[in-house]
Formats: sequence, C-alpha cells, structure tokens
Amino acid sequence: MMNDLKVLALTGGVGGAKLSLGLYQTLPPEVLTLLINTGDDQQHYGLLVCPDIDTVIYTLSGKNNQQLGWGIEGESWHCLNQLKTLGVDAWFQLGDKDIATHLFRLDGLNKGLNLTAVTDRLAKAHNLDCKILPMTDSPVRTQVDALHEGHLQRLGFHEYFVKFQCEPEVKSIHFQGSEAASLSDQANQSIKEADALIVCPSNPYLSIDPIFSVPSLKALLKEHIEKRLVVSPIIGGQAIKGPTAKIMQELGIERSVLSVAQHYQGFATHFVIDYEDEAYKDEIEALGLSVLLTQTLMKTDEDKRQLARDCLGFLG
Amino acid sequence: MMNDLKVLALTGGVGGAKLSLGLYQTLPPEVLTLLINTGDDQQHYGLLVCPDIDTVIYTLSGKNNQQLGWGIEGESWHCLNQLKTLGVDAWFQLGDKDIATHLFRLDGLNKGLNLTAVTDRLAKAHNLDCKILPMTDSPVRTQVDALHEGHLQRLGFHEYFVKFQCEPEVKSIHFQGSEAASLSDQANQSIKEADALIVCPSNPYLSIDPIFSVPSLKALLKEHIEKRLVVSPIIGGQAIKGPTAKIMQELGIERSVLSVAQHYQGFATHFVIDYEDEAYKDEIEALGLSVLLTQTLMKTDEDKRQLARDCLGFLG
Repeated sequence: MMNDLKVLALTGGVGGAKLSLGLYQTLPPEVLTLLINTGDDQQHYGLLVCPDIDTVIYTLSGKNNQQLGWGIEGESWHCLNQLKTLGVDAWFQLGDKDIATHLFRLDGLNKGLNLTAVTDRLAKAHNLDCKILPMTDSPVRTQVDALHEGHLQRLGFHEYFVKFQCEPEVKSIHFQGSEAASLSDQANQSIKEADALIVCPSNPYLSIDPIFSVPSLKALLKEHIEKRLVVSPIIGGQAIKGPTAKIMQELGIERSVLSVAQHYQGFATHFVIDYEDEAYKDEIEALGLSVLLTQTLMKTDEDKRQLARDCLGFLG
Repeated sequence: MMNDLKVLALTGGVGGAKLSLGLYQTLPPEVLTLLINTGDDQQHYGLLVCPDIDTVIYTLSGKNNQQLGWGIEGESWHCLNQLKTLGVDAWFQLGDKDIATHLFRLDGLNKGLNLTAVTDRLAKAHNLDCKILPMTDSPVRTQVDALHEGHLQRLGFHEYFVKFQCEPEVKSIHFQGSEAASLSDQANQSIKEADALIVCPSNPYLSIDPIFSVPSLKALLKEHIEKRLVVSPIIGGQAIKGPTAKIMQELGIERSVLSVAQHYQGFATHFVIDYEDEAYKDEIEALGLSVLLTQTLMKTDEDKRQLARDCLGFLG
C-alpha cells in the first residue's frame, strides 16, 4: 500500500509548494515530511523572513494569496506604508498579516527555540499535521554573483529576486554559511526513517542546491533512501514561474529537462517529466534514471494531487 | 531671556507627554532635552516596545491617537488579529502603524545601534528637532509586587498596567536591572549642560523613580542643575489619568500634593501645584520648596503651552 511509504519531500518556492500541497492532500499526514529550503531566509526590518517555509505553510493551510501569487490571503499594508513614512527603503513587501507570522517566529527565537521548533509551532498554529522542517537551524544565505548595471556584484537572494526582479545576469551562486551549517536532529531522523524521497519541481540551483549544501545532508539522503525521485521544474525548455530557465541560460546550461536530469545524475533514481518532453526520455534513461512521463503542469489542486499520486505510484 | 535656558525635562506616561508638548511648542528645540523613562519598556511578540518614548514622539509630532488616549493616529489591527488566530495570547495591543515604530527600532538595534541612537533616528524620522533620550541604554524593567487574585505576585509593568488594568494592589515597586544600568554619554552631557530641570507631571513612583534608579543619575542632576522644578501629577488628591492616586493609597501614602512634595523633598527646589491645592502651599514651602500656584490641568494644547510658560517663568 503506497500510503504506508514514509515520504520525505524537498521543496522551495512556489512550484515546490504546489506539489507539497498535492502530497499533503494525498498522503496520511503522519507519513509526510517536508524539508524546506532556508537559503532564501533573510532579515527585513529586523524580522527573520523565511519565504519558502511560509509559502508551504500558507499553501498547505489554504491561505496562500492567489491574486498576488505569494504571501497570505486578505493581506493589507498599513505597517509597511508607515515604515515608508519613516524613511525606510521598504522595497521588500511585508503585509500586516505576514508580519504576524514573522513576529510569531521572532518571539519563539527570542525565547530560545530554534527554527525547527518555531516552524513546528507555526505549522501547528495553522492546523497542519505533517512534519515541516527547515533544511537546517543554521543560517545559510543564498547569494548570487551577478552583473547588475554593468558591475559584477554579490547580491542577497531577495535583492536579486525581489528588488531587481531577477534582472541581473547570474554568474555564480553561493550558499553563505553552509560550511558551518549542521543538520537538525529532526531532519536527520526524518531522512533515516524515510522510504522515499521526492524532490519537488523547484529551482534546482536556487531552491534545491542550498538544501544539498548542508554538509552530510545529500550523502545521508543517498545512504538511507533508496528511491530518490525528482520532478523536473522545466517543461518544454521553460520554467512555469521564476528564473530557473533564465539562470540556466546565464550559467551556460542548455534549457531542457535533460540538463536538469544531468544536474541530478548520480543522485536521483527516478525522474518525472512532462509529456511535452517525451523526446528526452531515452537520453535521460541513458543517464541511469527511471523516467515517468506525465502531466507535470499543475494548474488546479486536482492537478497537484494527480502529480502526487503519479509520483507515489512511480515510487511504489 | 528665559528661552536661552537649556532645559532638561524628565518624563514618562501621558501626563508627562502633555507638558513635554507644551515645552516643545514654547522653547527653541535646540535648548530642550527630554529624558524619558524606559522602565515601561518590554518585549512583546519579540519586539521591544518603549511606550514612554513613543508616546512622546507621537505627541510631539502631532500623531498621538486622541480617541484611544495612547498609540498613533489612524491605527489598524490586522497584524494583531492575525497573531490571535495563531493562538498568541495577544493581550498587549499593538497596532499595524505602531508595529512599524517597533520594527524601525528592532532593525536599528539589530544593526548594533543602542537605544539612544535608535531613538534619535526615530525622532528625526518624525521630524522632531529637540533631543529625545532614553534614561539609559541598559534594560531596566519596572515590576510591581502586587496582590492579584489573592496572591502576592511580581508582575511586569504591562501585566499590571495593561493586562490587569491596575487592578492588583501594589505592595512594592522594583526596577529590575537598575543596579547594572549606566548613564549614556548623551544623557550625561545633557545633564551637565542643562540650566534647569523640569520633572513633568508623571507618576512619581512608576515614571520618575525608574529614571532616578539609574545609578548616579539623580546625584548628577543635583550636582549640575541648580534649579529643579517638579510639577505635581496630583490635583485635589486625584491623578488626572493613571494609577498614581490608587498606588499612593495602596502604599499607605496620603493622596495629596503634600505627599508628592515630600517624595521630592531634598531634591526639588521648585514645586508647581494647582490652584485647587492652595491649602498645601505653606506646608510645602516649609519643606524648603518654592511653590508656584497655577493651572496644572492640561486639557488643550494652549493649556500645555501655558503650563510650560508658567514653569519656565517660575525658573527664570
């Protein structure tokens, strides 16, 4: 029975949250653990903002803001507008309800909880009952060296992604702090207990590589989880959302599912691509991966559940 | 010319902010320094809330919320309501715009500024041009030992004042951390440069005593400032606002301007009381204080300016 599989899913960003929702609505919650990228975490106005964790929590609890495509539903901007009147360069959009999330987290961290414990409390406060874990409790910050206005600059992830809207040309990607990062006991245990790994269709370079940058994490996944499935975030040479395709081009990587498969070669055992990319099936299999062709574009919640079922069936 | 006097005013609470406004609208800003109680400061939801500093800043910049009697005008509560949905026991009311103040402060503190520097930035962000100083950069927290529901408990100031609305019977008052507190360079300099001291009509026990609890501060005031004027917060045996009179009764102190004068005996040189308390004039003078009878009740902004002028005239 596939529902008895203990599933660990790696996720970051909006595409990852979509399949996470599909898995959450498909599996009994007690068998699902989501291990989430925290490389996008950043301090804004003194608050620790964890976009990927919060996106998953808002999405799984049905509170994601569908109009904006990010953040929480029914948002307002009174605090941010006031910060602007105080002369703060408030380019990072934090809504009033979202700030409540960050205050909840700040309060917990100030009381000595680590990010894992605070995230667990936040998930429970949203009535979620699967396990939601940050990839590490240590600060790891994704930074890009990018050409911006003619100069090569090191940019924080949100400077690149939000302030400059992915316009700068990425030359290289760094995960500041990753050397010193350590795996939490909870993440360690979840990896050891998992029967199957699903890498959600997240940006491989900006969402999954930071997770892999935590020392020993990738090796532990390989050691303890036999079946390691990756869902390609690229369909027909394009990303559904976000800068994955643009970054591939800038890094000199061919924009195709084959490149994604090559990126995960030696790690992934199962690879899920869209029908549209059928032409690459043989080449990817030649890399040593089992390939599933299905619909990976998730427009509706039923699409998300269907993709989850497809992945679980492919693994089981 | 009285306007050349360098005036240092001690203040806390709403009554203190009223006379502070009167002084601010009367004196050239460069001669006025407000030294503000921080004993009421407290962490809420991870934010450092400094009610007395913020009350002064909102009041002097004309943004105080007159309907509520505290906080900032045009306030909304989206963040707080969201915190409540997360299960936070949100008894301390923080509005969305007020939270911007606390984020501004948190951001500065996180960047290594001390409270004095952050407060200066906040005041300038509100276009204020007098000097606004916290009494110390060290954490001093006013606590009361009080009978609450039949038990003697040590309560944080806001538990006493906000959560339990001053209902518990106060037995004693403590300024946690004061022994280790130190005077900032800026406060030290302002004391040494001041020609006159005005103690605003604030609660002597909960707003002014915490300022005096900072080691060496009271002695420095006496040493460097010859004329030390106190405005009584008690009129006709009552406080205009807040628990001053109730606390005096609970501490076994007669509720009168005479008791207030006795509290400041040996420190104050000038004492300002309301016409209503004329009967106490001789007794207070017998304590060695010069007494001014005037209208100390401040209903309008012109009342505040008039009381400021009265104090300055009395000193000059």
